[in-house]
Amino acid sequence: MTANWIDNKRNLMLFAGRAHPELGEAIANELGIEITPMTARDFANGEIFVRFEESVRGCDAFVLQSHTQPLNKWLMEQLIMIDALKRGSAKRITAILPFYPYARQDKKHRGREPISARLVADLLYAAGADRIISVDLHTDQIQGFFDGPVDHMHAMPILTDYIKANYSLDNIAVVSPDAGRVKVAEKWAKTLGDAPLAFVHKTRSVDVANQVVANRVVGDVAGKTCVLLDDMIDTGGTIAGAVGVLREAGATDVIIATTHGVFSGPARERLSQCGAKEVIATDTLPQNTEGWDNLTVLSIAPLLAKTIKEVFENGSVTQLFEGQA
Amino acid sequence: MTANWIDNKRNLMLFAGRAHPELGEAIANELGIEITPMTARDFANGEIFVRFEESVRGCDAFVLQSHTQPLNKWLMEQLIMIDALKRGSAKRITAILPFYPYARQDKKHRGREPISARLVADLLYAAGADRIISVDLHTDQIQGFFDGPVDHMHAMPILTDYIKANYSLDNIAVVSPDAGRVKVAEKWAKTLGDAPLAFVHKTRSVDVANQVVANRVVGDVAGKTCVLLDDMIDTGGTIAGAVGVLREAGATDVIIATTHGVFSGPARERLSQCGAKEVIATDTLPQNTEGWDNLTVLSIAPLLAKTIKEVFENGSVTQLFEGQA
Amino acid sequence: MTANWIDNKRNLMLFAGRAHPELGEAIANELGIEITPMTARDFANGEIFVRFEESVRGCDAFVLQSHTQPLNKWLMEQLIMIDALKRGSAKRITAILPFYPYARQDKKHRGREPISARLVADLLYAAGADRIISVDLHTDQIQGFFDGPVDHMHAMPILTDYIKANYSLDNIAVVSPDAGRVKVAEKWAKTLGDAPLAFVHKTRSVDVANQVVANRVVGDVAGKTCVLLDDMIDTGGTIAGAVGVLREAGATDVIIATTHGVFSGPARERLSQCGAKEVIATDTLPQNTEGWDNLTVLSIAPLLAKTIKEVFENGSVTQLFEGQA
Amino acid sequence: MTANWIDNKRNLMLFAGRAHPELGEAIANELGIEITPMTARDFANGEIFVRFEESVRGCDAFVLQSHTQPLNKWLMEQLIMIDALKRGSAKRITAILPFYPYARQDKKHRGREPISARLVADLLYAAGADRIISVDLHTDQIQGFFDGPVDHMHAMPILTDYIKANYSLDNIAVVSPDAGRVKVAEKWAKTLGDAPLAFVHKTRSVDVANQVVANRVVGDVAGKTCVLLDDMIDTGGTIAGAVGVLREAGATDVIIATTHGVFSGPARERLSQCGAKEVIATDTLPQNTEGWDNLTVLSIAPLLAKTIKEVFENGSVTQLFEGQA
Amino acid sequence: MTANWIDNKRNLMLFAGRAHPELGEAIANELGIEITPMTARDFANGEIFVRFEESVRGCDAFVLQSHTQPLNKWLMEQLIMIDALKRGSAKRITAILPFYPYARQDKKHRGREPISARLVADLLYAAGADRIISVDLHTDQIQGFFDGPVDHMHAMPILTDYIKANYSLDNIAVVSPDAGRVKVAEKWAKTLGDAPLAFVHKTRSVDVANQVVANRVVGDVAGKTCVLLDDMIDTGGTIAGAVGVLREAGATDVIIATTHGVFSGPARERLSQCGAKEVIATDTLPQNTEGWDNLTVLSIAPLLAKTIKEVFENGSVTQLFEGQA
Amino acid sequence: MTANWIDNKRNLMLFAGRAHPELGEAIANELGIEITPMTARDFANGEIFVRFEESVRGCDAFVLQSHTQPLNKWLMEQLIMIDALKRGSAKRITAILPFYPYARQDKKHRGREPISARLVADLLYAAGADRIISVDLHTDQIQGFFDGPVDHMHAMPILTDYIKANYSLDNIAVVSPDAGRVKVAEKWAKTLGDAPLAFVHKTRSVDVANQVVANRVVGDVAGKTCVLLDDMIDTGGTIAGAVGVLREAGATDVIIATTHGVFSGPARERLSQCGAKEVIATDTLPQNTEGWDNLTVLSIAPLLAKTIKEVFENGSVTQLFEGQA
Repeated sequence: MTANWIDNKRNLMLFAGRAHPELGEAIANELGIEITPMTARDFANGEIFVRFEESVRGCDAFVLQSHTQPLNKWLMEQLIMIDALKRGSAKRITAILPFYPYARQDKKHRGREPISARLVADLLYAAGADRIISVDLHTDQIQGFFDGPVDHMHAMPILTDYIKANYSLDNIAVVSPDAGRVKVAEKWAKTLGDAPLAFVHKTRSVDVANQVVANRVVGDVAGKTCVLLDDMIDTGGTIAGAVGVLREAGATDVIIATTHGVFSGPARERLSQCGAKEVIATDTLPQNTEGWDNLTVLSIAPLLAKTIKEVFENGSVTQLFEGQA
Repeated sequence: MTANWIDNKRNLMLFAGRAHPELGEAIANELGIEITPMTARDFANGEIFVRFEESVRGCDAFVLQSHTQPLNKWLMEQLIMIDALKRGSAKRITAILPFYPYARQDKKHRGREPISARLVADLLYAAGADRIISVDLHTDQIQGFFDGPVDHMHAMPILTDYIKANYSLDNIAVVSPDAGRVKVAEKWAKTLGDAPLAFVHKTRSVDVANQVVANRVVGDVAGKTCVLLDDMIDTGGTIAGAVGVLREAGATDVIIATTHGVFSGPARERLSQCGAKEVIATDTLPQNTEGWDNLTVLSIAPLLAKTIKEVFENGSVTQLFEGQA
Repeated sequence: MTANWIDNKRNLMLFAGRAHPELGEAIANELGIEITPMTARDFANGEIFVRFEESVRGCDAFVLQSHTQPLNKWLMEQLIMIDALKRGSAKRITAILPFYPYARQDKKHRGREPISARLVADLLYAAGADRIISVDLHTDQIQGFFDGPVDHMHAMPILTDYIKANYSLDNIAVVSPDAGRVKVAEKWAKTLGDAPLAFVHKTRSVDVANQVVANRVVGDVAGKTCVLLDDMIDTGGTIAGAVGVLREAGATDVIIATTHGVFSGPARERLSQCGAKEVIATDTLPQNTEGWDNLTVLSIAPLLAKTIKEVFENGSVTQLFEGQA
Repeated sequence: MTANWIDNKRNLMLFAGRAHPELGEAIANELGIEITPMTARDFANGEIFVRFEESVRGCDAFVLQSHTQPLNKWLMEQLIMIDALKRGSAKRITAILPFYPYARQDKKHRGREPISARLVADLLYAAGADRIISVDLHTDQIQGFFDGPVDHMHAMPILTDYIKANYSLDNIAVVSPDAGRVKVAEKWAKTLGDAPLAFVHKTRSVDVANQVVANRVVGDVAGKTCVLLDDMIDTGGTIAGAVGVLREAGATDVIIATTHGVFSGPARERLSQCGAKEVIATDTLPQNTEGWDNLTVLSIAPLLAKTIKEVFENGSVTQLFEGQA
Repeated sequence: MTANWIDNKRNLMLFAGRAHPELGEAIANELGIEITPMTARDFANGEIFVRFEESVRGCDAFVLQSHTQPLNKWLMEQLIMIDALKRGSAKRITAILPFYPYARQDKKHRGREPISARLVADLLYAAGADRIISVDLHTDQIQGFFDGPVDHMHAMPILTDYIKANYSLDNIAVVSPDAGRVKVAEKWAKTLGDAPLAFVHKTRSVDVANQVVANRVVGDVAGKTCVLLDDMIDTGGTIAGAVGVLREAGATDVIIATTHGVFSGPARERLSQCGAKEVIATDTLPQNTEGWDNLTVLSIAPLLAKTIKEVFENGSVTQLFEGQA
Repeated sequence: MTANWIDNKRNLMLFAGRAHPELGEAIANELGIEITPMTARDFANGEIFVRFEESVRGCDAFVLQSHTQPLNKWLMEQLIMIDALKRGSAKRITAILPFYPYARQDKKHRGREPISARLVADLLYAAGADRIISVDLHTDQIQGFFDGPVDHMHAMPILTDYIKANYSLDNIAVVSPDAGRVKVAEKWAKTLGDAPLAFVHKTRSVDVANQVVANRVVGDVAGKTCVLLDDMIDTGGTIAGAVGVLREAGATDVIIATTHGVFSGPARERLSQCGAKEVIATDTLPQNTEGWDNLTVLSIAPLLAKTIKEVFENGSVTQLFEGQA
């Protein structure tokens, strides 16, 4: 007999880029493992260098990066880490992008534009990623941009559980900030005890001749506590405006809930002063609650840790998001 | 000198599958050329055979197929035609899918589902297609499923021009049959003289305890001629129901407008009897007006012919759809 | 230590398209497992939808489809199933095509034709198949069309064992219906006790001036029981004609044996009335013996089950086909 | 306007490996061009170096190599030339393999074998070849091994024209040396004035108990001039044996005709002494008529030159082989 | 006749990222064309958006980016531009990277490192680049990282012409800052009138026991004007140190010459105060001479413009770098 | 439950081409396994045939070939073996090339040249190799030519351990034969007790007008035992010349050490007569010490066996080469 037989074991290794160390630590704690030590530094001209401190040969690698500012740098760091894992003989490489960058550029709005969300998928594939884990993609179709498995997780249960624990559902309404998110709002409404639904609709004013555009609340919000939701909040202009419109329409309180708190530029000021009672976000991106009293940050780490565990052990992640794959 | 120089000319050749010969002929007429003769037949067990009757070497090939029933057969025929063109040395192959098949399966609605719209793009690519031309994709993100140029054309101007020519815009309203199409309806409303907007919203009834779901019109349609639109109409159930709701809400007339008149199964009966004044569709799929008095079919051929011409001559197609690439 | 180690187990899962449920069941029974439950249905316009009812993550997936009429639909269903497995994180995907579709179009007979058998291999690969299992390919070279392992099984032992059990080999002759199958007939003759060999040869008549083409038996069949074989029988014209020629040449009885009983259109009538004593086929395609008394169907399921088992357990399949890989 | 426009011209450049300089020269003469000068040499350890002496940027490159002994060296040289053309920005690269190497290994005859003919196609593709031109592939299915256009030319008209010009067709018979080539022989017979057909059949002797295998002529050759054909003749054993059998069967004369005269090892001696009146071959491989009186070599260069010209000018090559693509 | 023929013209279009607008303008001026207008902006969270203002269909696109700080952002911008060109149907896309980023990470120095220079090539390819133009790659082998043509240009003639015009060659020496660049220095020495050669060698001191490392000049530089060269200067530490060593060894003057003046962090201060008479660099990266008196910047634009022109017109670029491809 | 679970075991199988059977045997002995039996033969026209005698399904395959003369044949044999493994369902295929062929052609030295070292990587990948193991690549950048893991091992410890055991380090100097290898020599010098360093420098003579080129020793070698090293020695001209120069410069003895003893053509004579005391090489290529008294051959087998073992067991190979990955 010419062959040499051994048992085939598998080992999970977790790798984390430098963008959001707290998230990596939290996931590692949930999993009861440590992040694989890595040397990572920037050369003087901005080039990134990484090297893993342990052998990665044959491992089932999960490579976490959080795509906060400077976003292109952290994307490149993740690609370089994946390249190093591929060349270091990792068996399978799963890229974890809690917030998928460039998700808004998921189509050509007009001619001669890129489809950058597809490009991101292509770059991950070219670097060597076999699979992707992400949370609340801007549109579900982005799953189809990657030529391999995409585990698309949802933060809604985390956010709605918090609301259920902290607010009475008796007098609540679920509100979408524009027409495009009404379907998502329907799922929230169902989860929050069949709460009534409303949304803010941008329209040409028919009453006032000179006023070209007005935002109008569709649905009844008077006297209600409104849960205003969005997948991501960047500069916060639309959301802050919606809060104002809701309050004008008689809403008692407004709670803002979002998965991805990008909170760029004026967002902190806008959202802390817009009149919302509470802003709830997860930590798919690094958050800073200092000086922002009404910001509540819920951790995405338990969800990501459970997903990694199921992927590693070949369990089903479908149950993790309660039937919405 | 060792090289032999000649002028490099290009020739456009149009190929058409057997699913919808009238559309191919109409496009050829618009272009002033003939469809390349092709032998195509079915073997007794259902296998398809094709052979082109003229040399296709070096040509700029445009391969039209209409994905009507039996849809999988016509898709396979188009793939086989593309394979034959690739092996026959066509220089560039553009697949034309006026109605993109499997477009509704553009994401995993739940776990362990396919993304068949991406699969269709992969199959076209594997067969040898370099580019795609399509009309009114179910979602714009499908453009990003193909790893190459996609010219995504819009039938709205054809449909709205017809409405402008045949109806007074004074008393019109634009209606989306569900919340997901409101953004498209906004574009129509703008084109139709800033017509007011409405849509049919599926909701739990708050008035009647036992009635679980009700359709409600959001927006004012009383006394108006409603243009009810959708990208595609398959069995017609949703649309026919919307007509009823609109009429109950006081609409004077309802005009149904769609790009892709799939009209499967009970659609003919439903739509001819639902109370709509007129049903307007294009011929991206074969249409039969016999016995269906209020069906109007507008030809997509001029738009496709212009697109082919611009692609062949390296012109811009952006202008063809008035700024919506 | 940063890694988390677990044992690496493998699980076999069997998936079956809707074309031939009996074959799937028979294979599952042989393996002592169940077919993975799957929702599969046709939309009104002919689009196929599938969803698996159990997690397929990490499994060794075997995807059976039988390519009977409507052949293109069943091929597309298999491709969609493979796509769903790929996106659902199956570890390895083996497509089982007991009858390989489009196998006759394995070359360009003339210019500007497709090579559809290669296209089928490319489509399977594009969808995500890692390997193929098939039975009695029309030509062995089709193995080379797929860029991965192809387990090419042979039904001859099943067919010849039946003949040995039911007929005396003393007075038998093996006959090929045309010159292209003589090499295959040689293998049969060897297996059937070094039976004499003959074949039907299409030739211009030298005796009769006006008769352009005649079929002539080459080899001595007078007084013999002829085993007339072919890899597939479609409409049955050639085979039925061969039976007539053999009987004219003095054959006592003719037994028809084929792996793939396509039996399209007039085949049932032709073959039941051509004078053959018995028609033997396997169930690589669904068979119906009702009203066809002399049709005998042998099951391919044990061979496919053994092949799946060996592939799953990394055994050798070479022994399964007795030295003809 | 931001663009700079120029006419797009194309230039044909011919490149020739060192295996068979006469063939390259002959083709260049037919085309009225010169072979692009190339430095090519062997390093002391057997590594090959090539460099082109003129710019190849943007050219339509045709890369000829003849796969004679040492065959693997010449294949590697052709791959290196293609790599240099790809990196030197040739626009399109057509590999010309008059004799396709490893064509006999076009399937797995048994388990755990390579399919080397597919491997050759993959290597050419990996190096950068866009297209292939070859002559009389061992099996037509090899066309399907390459993922691009294959122009498969036939030498039969060259060989049959010679026979027509030098022999009376009145008393001719066409003979295949084994059962596998009868279909090819049919085409020859048709071309040679509907000549009668025969072939040599390897069988177990029924007459003589101890004689295990015998070659038998099927068909009537007595008193005839036999044209014995094959696609390639390597060591000549089978063909020389067939000549003996034919003469025993009463053939007056035997003419051997083959496209690829490999003529390895004992072939020269066997074929010059086997009793054949004439051996006719083409120069797809280098030929040496010295000391071999009855060898006639016909040039393949005009056919290849015409093919190159048509491919370059996007003409049809289908006519060149009289309807057999 | 079914085909429609037109002349095939080609148009050159130049696209420039935002990193170094002056270089783009200078190249456009040399070519007598304008840079294609492009909308490019950063979203608040750092995502980049680009859109071209003119049709790019069928063009021969040259996409310039200068990889200065923030380097990863500019690389991503270039990838996004390439994606937009691919989807906008550009015929051919050439990425121009005057300074190739991550060139120093061209191998694994130790285990578990990336090969980032290969990754950059893979990312460009994945985005859609067909070809690359670069200047003075850190090692020549990087050409082999891209699976397509790489035009690798050299700035040496620009730098040496300046030196010839401004310094007497009578008393000059060419110096490499370390052993790894001596071969490059040999080429410079030959170009500068067979100037004598020297280099700085890092060695353990043999004279002084406790001094572990010393830099020593190998070759005679006393009384000479030294031309100290390197392909790139980042923080300037090595080069400034070499100047000191050369002056200690008796050099009269030191002129520093480099292609890529990265000049990160302390470089400006180090190089302006190290005692060098003049620092000569090109503008492959943006340069700022304000407050740096002895910095001379030579334009790379004429070389890149000539290269683009030759590539577009299918001329030879080999002559542009005087025989060193 | 529908799945069938088994333990997942892995088996190592070693395959060896015919170029260097002793090396294969030595590695197998080190590993305590046998080389998988293989039928391999040459057809008369030079085509290679291989077939494995045991099932290779699911194995972790290591495919050894030594690229000695005739180098292109042995490369092709290795590619064919890899193809057979791929088609025979090996799970993972590692190509072992102790001496990487065409490594010297790792860049375009001038325009219109191939990059043959990249081509070799592409051919291995196209055939189906997943990984590469090699020893002392001519340049480290060749690692980046392969799109997968490359384990790049170093023979230096083997060679230096031998020198340490057989020579006194007290009076030793390490010498590079040209400027390009000085960095490698530095590593050797450090390993050999911080030995002094020297190298032979090719320069224009400044002393003698008519003498165009002279080789000069840089560094002090008088009275020392010189270790003259190179990665490979082909015809031996440069090395033999360096020995002469060193002896003229007063070296007491010269020991030549190389990883790859190619020793083509005149090498044996040159090196045995050049005055070197000993020539030390490994057996990455077959060596013949007959009639060459001062040739010492050290076995590379233990290093390769350890590397195979670590790769198979997913251990780290980094330690095997003492920190130089």
